[in-house]
Amino acid sequence: MSNPQFPFAARMDGLSGSAIREIFKLLRLPGMISFAGGNPAPEALEEAVITDVAQHVMSQDGKAILQYGPTEGYGPLRVRLCDWLRGFGFSPTTEEVLPITGSTQGIDLVCKALVDPGDAVLVENPTFLGALQTLRLYQANIVPVVSDENGIIVQALEEAMRKYRPKLLYIIPTFQNPTGVTLAEDRRAPIAALAEKYGVLVLEDDPYRDLRYAGRPMPAIKGYDQAGWVAHLSSFSKTIAPGLRCGALSADEGLIRKLAICKQSVDVHTSTLTQAVVSEYLARRLLPGHLADIRKLYAARLAAMLEALAAWPEGTRYTTPLGGLFVWVRLPGGMDASELLSRAVEKGVAFVPGSHFYCQDAQADTLRLNFSNSEPDKIRRGMAVLQELIREMPG
Amino acid sequence: MSNPQFPFAARMDGLSGSAIREIFKLLRLPGMISFAGGNPAPEALEEAVITDVAQHVMSQDGKAILQYGPTEGYGPLRVRLCDWLRGFGFSPTTEEVLPITGSTQGIDLVCKALVDPGDAVLVENPTFLGALQTLRLYQANIVPVVSDENGIIVQALEEAMRKYRPKLLYIIPTFQNPTGVTLAEDRRAPIAALAEKYGVLVLEDDPYRDLRYAGRPMPAIKGYDQAGWVAHLSSFSKTIAPGLRCGALSADEGLIRKLAICKQSVDVHTSTLTQAVVSEYLARRLLPGHLADIRKLYAARLAAMLEALAAWPEGTRYTTPLGGLFVWVRLPGGMDASELLSRAVEKGVAFVPGSHFYCQDAQADTLRLNFSNSEPDKIRRGMAVLQELIREMPG
Repeated sequence: MSNPQFPFAARMDGLSGSAIREIFKLLRLPGMISFAGGNPAPEALEEAVITDVAQHVMSQDGKAILQYGPTEGYGPLRVRLCDWLRGFGFSPTTEEVLPITGSTQGIDLVCKALVDPGDAVLVENPTFLGALQTLRLYQANIVPVVSDENGIIVQALEEAMRKYRPKLLYIIPTFQNPTGVTLAEDRRAPIAALAEKYGVLVLEDDPYRDLRYAGRPMPAIKGYDQAGWVAHLSSFSKTIAPGLRCGALSADEGLIRKLAICKQSVDVHTSTLTQAVVSEYLARRLLPGHLADIRKLYAARLAAMLEALAAWPEGTRYTTPLGGLFVWVRLPGGMDASELLSRAVEKGVAFVPGSHFYCQDAQADTLRLNFSNSEPDKIRRGMAVLQELIREMPG
Repeated sequence: MSNPQFPFAARMDGLSGSAIREIFKLLRLPGMISFAGGNPAPEALEEAVITDVAQHVMSQDGKAILQYGPTEGYGPLRVRLCDWLRGFGFSPTTEEVLPITGSTQGIDLVCKALVDPGDAVLVENPTFLGALQTLRLYQANIVPVVSDENGIIVQALEEAMRKYRPKLLYIIPTFQNPTGVTLAEDRRAPIAALAEKYGVLVLEDDPYRDLRYAGRPMPAIKGYDQAGWVAHLSSFSKTIAPGLRCGALSADEGLIRKLAICKQSVDVHTSTLTQAVVSEYLARRLLPGHLADIRKLYAARLAAMLEALAAWPEGTRYTTPLGGLFVWVRLPGGMDASELLSRAVEKGVAFVPGSHFYCQDAQADTLRLNFSNSEPDKIRRGMAVLQELIREMPG
């Protein structure tokens, strides 16, 4: 066997994803305490319930579930999504929602429909690294917008819209990944208004909204969208089960039609079995009770992590999120988080260095800690290991 | 609500897909006899078996099935795919197979990894219209290669490779969509050799192989691949159930790694539930018996369709496939198939005009007939309607 040199497309230049992939490989080592992923707790995955739901939908609608379905999604799910999304502060019609194969697919489809190579796309900095990877594959000119502890700064956003004439703003306004920060309520309507004013689509990624442990819910940016310039991504990966790969995109009907044409060319439609499972799960009104359970579970884990962080060396700074899955940490004395990771892995603890989440000006002293996937005791042990390593490291 | 004018990307120019979508909408009308889709027969969809299999895998591995899984696919499925693909005439390692969200995703991923705008991609003409749509979204320069009744002509292929320096050859060698034609066995090794000689990836789309009703199976082009220049797409949509959205891509290990990076950015991974269902279905060795059943079912339908065609007016020409799902027809006297469709729909019969399957030089007098989705009696009735309409039409 020779070693073929394939003529890869320009969009593949410099693309590796390998740093993160290497970290995730470590997680399979036995005994590893992982703060690295964004995985739900194993206890939060209801295999008996999902099995029962799957059995039921197959008995009710098995032939249709196994046959080709419409690209626009399984009919009953579209109806239930409309109902469910009202809790996000907006009321789409069935023609304004598109079931998708995980919300990552929504990012890909929106880029496919809108982004030409070189087009400016605004993002928070740091932001979700999966989105950065997708944007890079579309050869977007990724432009950071400055945020503070209340999320993206509206004035900075307007300046960037005026200066770069971007196609998109990609934003995670609620319990952001990786920082855990939430966009203030009074910044939401202005962002929707700027989208219309400058003709920039806001792609609002909103997978953590239902994981609120304190404070009161606020409407999505989409809730302030008067003119159709906000597309909203929701997900069942953090609340029902990521392995199902089922999310939803809500947007202007004309945009949904274009995205459906794109979707037809990427996977024809999302698995009808998983769409039907989510549809029936919603129809049975299982989500509110399950959310109450996992909020309690995750709130205790977040508390354990914040308590441990309070004991870290002076100069450590960190966010105190009211929800979501992540805490964002800045190490004292400009310490290098990648160096900390190397040492931590030897002691059986993993996390993601913050540098991976920046589109530019990566801050090497930052890290992202996930708390949902480890019990409080494990969190305390893992955090103690990190604390000890930080004390030992040259500042 | 205003009507936002989104700044779509150049790749969306002229893209509609609407003609076909309109035809498929017709199929929902009650009583419609459809020769239009590529759908398995409802009788071929085993809802009780799939339910049992799903229940079993959830009881055995429910937590892992519901959690995030590796982009590279569900481990047990990769192992079983290797075993299953031996029947196609090649023996991949687990690192050389990638479970995908339907084989359409494989076309998208290969284009993403390899095709820059303007790159030449060779295709049969006519070919699968879904592939044409995906290639157009990557702004490929789609170049037809001449075929005869034994598939693509090797000499014409070599000339096109030399002249256009293409990135890809997209080919459906066995029971082609839309024509039903099969590439002769003695053309397969030469095509694999040309791929290596010119550094052109052959993307071999092979979803119909297991639906052979006569003659003896022959190896896939991938079976002759010495150098890793053939990527092979297989699907369970035509044999187990399209609604699961599960297929497989087999290729050089280095290429699979790149495609997995692309896949991470489009859907993270294929639904683990559907991967596990296919894996267990294969493990139970249910496929051979099921294939025997559906071959018998479809062979009778193909026979009914060919018998009906034999009675069509003189000058009608058509293929006589040994397998697959489609017969390709050329109407007598240069009759227009779109005009026939308009009249047929009023009488409750649908099909796809052949013109949609051409990348250029569309032949308006051609049509594609699917026989798998209608019982023989329905086929006879629908074909009689078409026959009558053809007689009435001006030649």
